[in-house]
Amino acid sequence: MAVITVSTSKRYELVDVTEDVRVIVKESGVKEGLCNVYAPHATAAITINENADPNIRDDISDALSQLIKEGCWRHDRIDNNAASHIKAAIVGASETIPIVNGELAMGTWQDIFICDFDGPRTRKVIVTVLPKS
Amino acid sequence: MAVITVSTSKRYELVDVTEDVRVIVKESGVKEGLCNVYAPHATAAITINENADPNIRDDISDALSQLIKEGCWRHDRIDNNAASHIKAAIVGASETIPIVNGELAMGTWQDIFICDFDGPRTRKVIVTVLPKS
Amino acid sequence: MAVITVSTSKRYELVDVTEDVRVIVKESGVKEGLCNVYAPHATAAITINENADPNIRDDISDALSQLIKEGCWRHDRIDNNAASHIKAAIVGASETIPIVNGELAMGTWQDIFICDFDGPRTRKVIVTVLPKS
Repeated sequence: MAVITVSTSKRYELVDVTEDVRVIVKESGVKEGLCNVYAPHATAAITINENADPNIRDDISDALSQLIKEGCWRHDRIDNNAASHIKAAIVGASETIPIVNGELAMGTWQDIFICDFDGPRTRKVIVTVLPKS
Repeated sequence: MAVITVSTSKRYELVDVTEDVRVIVKESGVKEGLCNVYAPHATAAITINENADPNIRDDISDALSQLIKEGCWRHDRIDNNAASHIKAAIVGASETIPIVNGELAMGTWQDIFICDFDGPRTRKVIVTVLPKS
Repeated sequence: MAVITVSTSKRYELVDVTEDVRVIVKESGVKEGLCNVYAPHATAAITINENADPNIRDDISDALSQLIKEGCWRHDRIDNNAASHIKAAIVGASETIPIVNGELAMGTWQDIFICDFDGPRTRKVIVTVLPKS
């Protein structure tokens, strides 16, 4: 188990943690297995998508903001961040990625992001590598 | 492998199964590894979010109902629950959570829910604990 | 680790890969464990839902198309497929399914799909089976 810590600077921000995850997989020495990437937060989530065009990060964030309006939910009376919770529920707290020949078996255009839907904050990403046996 | 059984009483209901999952992890004796939580249903899903304010459960459910209208889909002519299937596809059938020092490495504000999008029904949650090696 | 290759013929298409995954699980000889199903693509995703009524596949696809409009995003100026990326982020690249008694512990009405949101293309699904220990 390893922890990546990221600091976001905007209210909505997707941070690319792919390189950190790659280093953790490499240092684990695991050749075949699974790599779990987990966001231990109720207003953040993990997604896998393209970062070759970094605009996609803002497109994903904007799309979710168009779908989930702010300020109109029960929880807004308490914390005013209900939309952040709902977005996290839609995107999901975990992704699990195969490891093949000691590397993440991701596609050419895939990167791993933590999505902060309630920044700016310090966020953690927990990475767990399990060998095939 | 362990099975949690829950009975829902409403058409849309998020049921907190965190304590049951914690007991299963503890009884497994696994100190480091992964815990997979799986909903074996086509109109239910697993999500991780906050339950300190239980209103969030209804906010998530309401948000999905606003996004996915009922009664207007092809499958409604057969079963009249297409929206339930679409919501399950968006939220997803599984989440996988790290285990560290014999405990679920979840955030302070995270709880595990099964989302019943087609209740009331009896639903199952399958919990699988894998040790690191 | 095994790879399933599918060819889609439409722009939006959900392809049922359940039988291929079942064969991979059977041939692995694993009796208890987890099966990870992963889409190594930035415009495709994995979902689990019903295929007894194949209309549900189109309902899921249509619902996502209603939620995420085309042609209005930053990335559309580069690749004209931003909506495909956003849909993949919402549905997610991976699902992980328990294996019990040598079989996928899926519900009666569950099938595994790769969702191609930017077809027609050749797509891969990576299947990884991890024994309990």
